[in-house]
Amino acid sequence: MKKVTVIGGGTGTYVILSGIKNLEIDLSVVVSMTDSGGSTGKLRDQLGVLPPGDLRQCLVALSDAPELWRKLFLYRFDQGDFKGHNFGNVFLAALEKVSKNYDQVVDTASYVLQTKGKVIPVTLDKLHLVAEYENGKTITGEGLIDENHTERSKIKKVFLTPKGKANPKAIDRIIESDYIILGPGDLYTSIIPVFLVDGIVSALSKSKAKLIYIMNLMTKSGQTTDYKASDHLKDLEKYLGRKIDFVLVNNGKISQEILESYRKYNEKEVVDDLVEKEYKIIREDLIDNRPVEKNASDILYRSILRHDSEKIAKVLEKIIYA
Amino acid sequence: MKKVTVIGGGTGTYVILSGIKNLEIDLSVVVSMTDSGGSTGKLRDQLGVLPPGDLRQCLVALSDAPELWRKLFLYRFDQGDFKGHNFGNVFLAALEKVSKNYDQVVDTASYVLQTKGKVIPVTLDKLHLVAEYENGKTITGEGLIDENHTERSKIKKVFLTPKGKANPKAIDRIIESDYIILGPGDLYTSIIPVFLVDGIVSALSKSKAKLIYIMNLMTKSGQTTDYKASDHLKDLEKYLGRKIDFVLVNNGKISQEILESYRKYNEKEVVDDLVEKEYKIIREDLIDNRPVEKNASDILYRSILRHDSEKIAKVLEKIIYA
Repeated sequence: MKKVTVIGGGTGTYVILSGIKNLEIDLSVVVSMTDSGGSTGKLRDQLGVLPPGDLRQCLVALSDAPELWRKLFLYRFDQGDFKGHNFGNVFLAALEKVSKNYDQVVDTASYVLQTKGKVIPVTLDKLHLVAEYENGKTITGEGLIDENHTERSKIKKVFLTPKGKANPKAIDRIIESDYIILGPGDLYTSIIPVFLVDGIVSALSKSKAKLIYIMNLMTKSGQTTDYKASDHLKDLEKYLGRKIDFVLVNNGKISQEILESYRKYNEKEVVDDLVEKEYKIIREDLIDNRPVEKNASDILYRSILRHDSEKIAKVLEKIIYA
Repeated sequence: MKKVTVIGGGTGTYVILSGIKNLEIDLSVVVSMTDSGGSTGKLRDQLGVLPPGDLRQCLVALSDAPELWRKLFLYRFDQGDFKGHNFGNVFLAALEKVSKNYDQVVDTASYVLQTKGKVIPVTLDKLHLVAEYENGKTITGEGLIDENHTERSKIKKVFLTPKGKANPKAIDRIIESDYIILGPGDLYTSIIPVFLVDGIVSALSKSKAKLIYIMNLMTKSGQTTDYKASDHLKDLEKYLGRKIDFVLVNNGKISQEILESYRKYNEKEVVDDLVEKEYKIIREDLIDNRPVEKNASDILYRSILRHDSEKIAKVLEKIIYA
């Protein structure tokens, strides 16, 4: 079976995993560990735990447990002392407090959620993402970088503080993978942070894996403002130290209504300026047109426009089994 | 197999269940649902859930899951938004929020904790315990009644507000039991509240079960101040509408040091004034003399003097298989 590894965290990774977990592949996800916003950020600050948020999303995405368990792990308290906290995060935080090591945390959560595929935190070190902007400004903390919507200056570079050491399981997995899938997701706060961890880029250089990048649908204000498709790849490859092999680009039509709602935040559709000679480019309608149910999962509800996990899975299946 | 049902909640019930779960019996516990103190009280107030505390203790006591799960369910957050909250309570509260009904909550928690025996909430109605004292004072809420240490007046009566309807599973179980075990535990806040629920006393009157009462070791200030053994039974039987068949009384020696630490709270050893003709009385050394580990379980840590679950189980085994 082909070894396929998804790298990231956040909503984009959730969508991809939800689709490809049903393919006949040996699947793992290497999860970013720099989240510092919302419920995750509070748990980090108050309890000194590793960031549970991205890990939880990946665990739930891969879960084959009865619907109730997935609902429980996505449940967000809406009042009282816990207001704003997500139950899955609280579960992982408490579990970390009583476990011998973090492997036990991941194994226990994977067991109860009956995950298909392995979830691997990229590092077990506690660290934060730092962004340095071209105007000299520096912001520490993924949550704050994410919220810096109104920033007009470009990100000059991102790095970790302190420097983190890669989880040996992440290194091994990257080296032995046949395919590595990146994106969609926030370039600087969901994808690149994984490659800042010491040992990951070197593992990637040793790996024969083909790299597949799923292009974002929209630019992100303050992070990839006005970015064209080629800008995403240029920045990404700088950190990867390797070229991407396959790029999946949406060519389905995004409704005017949705484009309008993004325009308020100065975000627009990513322009496809890619040239075939550099990459294998797959252009398809990749948009999820299904109406979003409010209660289905607040992960998905928060992004009004997103990739369709089934459509993506079909395209990926063709590449993997070509 | 003999059908044995433990009735209660709290530390005493935890101790009894921990021991007898290893006997060859068909075991259930009917759990009191009036707790309103601490973490449980906050969760009730803030989230409108049923009280999880006693249920959690019973689930953990019966758990056959790896040690890690039991530790997780007993874990108490010591800082941050969750300070003072017990993870098991938070788990049950969130689970209630995403479940179709409370059976699903109990079943899911029982599954993950791999409980030996069934845990049955006595009612699924949200209610509170009210105590009326002889001096005319009235206190609503089990937590507040528990804390009313300095009360000199006797409890005249206790009742529920609103009146609760018994869980049909509790009724069936009581009717078909061979043995029903009550105590040890706070008479008015752990044992009697179960019998205040509409339908329980009538189930008990239909049941052929022998009733076994395990006498408390110490009096409880403000609740059973100065009570002798016979006073416990007199009050209990008033609410049960039936006589107790077997009474287990400790005759092991309690150290002066421990008696001293209780004396500060005006609590003393329960005097054994029981007369054989009324009950089958079993007098044995029932005290747990093992040192308490701080981290073992904060349930047990809180009571410096407690019954020995193994010694109790041995005595109960003899009664049940006589």
